Amino acid sequence: MTNELINATAYSYTKSEALFARASKVIPNGIYGHFNPVTQKPAGTYPHYSERASGARFWDVDGNEYVDYMCAYGPMILGYGNSIVDEAFQKQVALADTCTLASPVMIDLAEYMVNMIPAADWAYFAKNGADATNLAVLIARAATGRKKTIAIGDGYHGSSPWMLAKGRAGVIEDDHANVIRIPWNDVPALEAALDEHSGNIAAFISSPYHHPAFADNEMPADGFWDNVHKLLKRHDVVSICDDVRAGFRIDMRGSNEYFGYTPDLICYCKAIANGYPISALVGSDSLKDAASAIFQTGSFWFSAGPMAAALACLKELNRIDAPALIMSTGKKVFDGMVDIAKTHGHELIVTGMPSMPYMRTVHEDGIAFHQALCGECTRRGLFLTSHHNLFVSAAHTDEDVQRTLDIFEDAFKALTS
Amino acid sequence: MTNELINATAYSYTKSEALFARASKVIPNGIYGHFNPVTQKPAGTYPHYSERASGARFWDVDGNEYVDYMCAYGPMILGYGNSIVDEAFQKQVALADTCTLASPVMIDLAEYMVNMIPAADWAYFAKNGADATNLAVLIARAATGRKKTIAIGDGYHGSSPWMLAKGRAGVIEDDHANVIRIPWNDVPALEAALDEHSGNIAAFISSPYHHPAFADNEMPADGFWDNVHKLLKRHDVVSICDDVRAGFRIDMRGSNEYFGYTPDLICYCKAIANGYPISALVGSDSLKDAASAIFQTGSFWFSAGPMAAALACLKELNRIDAPALIMSTGKKVFDGMVDIAKTHGHELIVTGMPSMPYMRTVHEDGIAFHQALCGECTRRGLFLTSHHNLFVSAAHTDEDVQRTLDIFEDAFKALTS
Repeated sequence: MTNELINATAYSYTKSEALFARASKVIPNGIYGHFNPVTQKPAGTYPHYSERASGARFWDVDGNEYVDYMCAYGPMILGYGNSIVDEAFQKQVALADTCTLASPVMIDLAEYMVNMIPAADWAYFAKNGADATNLAVLIARAATGRKKTIAIGDGYHGSSPWMLAKGRAGVIEDDHANVIRIPWNDVPALEAALDEHSGNIAAFISSPYHHPAFADNEMPADGFWDNVHKLLKRHDVVSICDDVRAGFRIDMRGSNEYFGYTPDLICYCKAIANGYPISALVGSDSLKDAASAIFQTGSFWFSAGPMAAALACLKELNRIDAPALIMSTGKKVFDGMVDIAKTHGHELIVTGMPSMPYMRTVHEDGIAFHQALCGECTRRGLFLTSHHNLFVSAAHTDEDVQRTLDIFEDAFKALTS
Repeated sequence: MTNELINATAYSYTKSEALFARASKVIPNGIYGHFNPVTQKPAGTYPHYSERASGARFWDVDGNEYVDYMCAYGPMILGYGNSIVDEAFQKQVALADTCTLASPVMIDLAEYMVNMIPAADWAYFAKNGADATNLAVLIARAATGRKKTIAIGDGYHGSSPWMLAKGRAGVIEDDHANVIRIPWNDVPALEAALDEHSGNIAAFISSPYHHPAFADNEMPADGFWDNVHKLLKRHDVVSICDDVRAGFRIDMRGSNEYFGYTPDLICYCKAIANGYPISALVGSDSLKDAASAIFQTGSFWFSAGPMAAALACLKELNRIDAPALIMSTGKKVFDGMVDIAKTHGHELIVTGMPSMPYMRTVHEDGIAFHQALCGECTRRGLFLTSHHNLFVSAAHTDEDVQRTLDIFEDAFKALTS
């Protein structure tokens, strides 16, 4: 297989490029937001449009096949076209989906999450991950009567203006007036911020471990979360865990459980319903009155189909112990890649959890070599981005893993020969 | 039928109430946001949960049947379970829905909207109506380098803190620092605001006509939009049409066309895909660079299923000339209701467009009588809210209309006898 791959003509993207040219006429940037292909380098190594998907693989519009390590940037934790989730969705939609009244499945889902997640006494559902993080901050402000939020410097909590980096187009200074940014793993910085703004801090928001784009991911240092929570408690500050990206990939009870701490609020989205659009905020009883006092809503927040999908997805993730499974698959894949890189004289750095690691190659050319490597993999059928977490799913089979490593080796050979 | 209805025992809500009690333990307010049943008065006249839905009707968990005039608060413009939209959705999802790459259907949808809507040169898709209004304001800020937005006093543009009324729990003064509110139809107030903040106003956002909750809806006065746009042009301010609620219920080319004006940006959501979750912002070429410069994204913004549903929905709405059809159905329904009220010695005031009117009864008890009337209708099988726009769909048949008027008459008799 190896020889065949090396000798194979790399994928061509004729139809992708033609579609992108059409798209650029009627869509800003052709494709906007985190799917914008400008981040996929070198130019010409990536396709832009998918035609169909199944399990851990998808096919682009030119018919090229990929073993996929993005899982749609997180959601497809059970793989594409998972029949258990899809059937639960279709069964509910055949009865009612978006309707004038809420659906009983909303209660089933809330009860299931409250039973599963120790930190959760209630649940609130929305659509975007940013809906959940915005809800969390609003509830913290309502509960404390305070207005400021502390966040990690390059932590990502959605694309609302207050969460976007300063200097991004359209973002104004006032958007950041009530956001204080501190470095990851820096307890003294948190303490200084809490002291400086004593009585004005409503919330501290952070992912359970630090997983920025374009940078190595970082685990919490020993005692970090303990020390953080002692400080938050002393200052009566609401602790928000943004588990939008890592949720259900580390621990079904909340990624915070793995790291040994208990936040007041946890934000979920991404993998909660295997691709059907729903996000959730869960929280403690102490914040239920505040959560009841705020007003937040959306046109499709009560759609029953995605709720039924979420319930089926969470049950299936529990049944197969998905976090352990995808962690184990991830370890096989990325340990294998590290070994292959080593045999070619390169150091591959893999950080973060094996179920959604961040990967880079140590090279004198900086990110350019790693971009070339990911590009060479992609145009051979192994879809990898060079700047973002990768995602493993429960649908990645041993055959997928073997193909992954074969292509990775071929790409390395092509690049270094 | 009339006698049978009068003599019928009104609906009971045993299962709804039991479910709501369960929900209240694990969900803030039991049901939060705009579906919160606290707005449905008098207590006991409304169900809380739907079991299934079809065409213009739905059935609650106690098995009670309703002719529905809420259409899920707007989305279900072709009625529940429309086979054309549902099949387009399912066909796409069987290939790929949420995936690592965008889908070609995104381009088809953008092209279709650009062809259909004269003000549109491009389209940007998201999930919530508030995503579209937030996108619009961000683009206006990016384009103008200014930070303030003018909005109508009680206009609703989603539940982001800057758009929520001051004093709502969690909303702080800073959220409103860059929002200036003026009364509807008040050109001098707009002029005064533009003069006072000359050079600092990025955008003016408004629905095409004024449709607040809890108040009569108001049409634009003669020359209003002309005068508004002369002022906006003079001050280089971006004109945002929030067509989230009225979109595709007045004019497929944009509700602004019906009222004879051309905004720079139009926000859509609600009825765009007959209940599948997608929103859209469309805009003029002059703002495409700004729309390309901003960064906005979301976990499910590229899901192909809702895009295929939107494309099928818009085509079907055009095929049947849905705005004319539902306007005509709405006229039959609400003219009929006005006549029935008159025969019972009551004045029913219907404002706004007949496809989504606001209704109230003139009565010395104020809103209480109208609430009682809507409650009596609902518990007989005609679902009406007393405080919000009602929505007519293309699925409302002559039989639905006749049943509507029969129940309305019965409710009036029960209330006034």
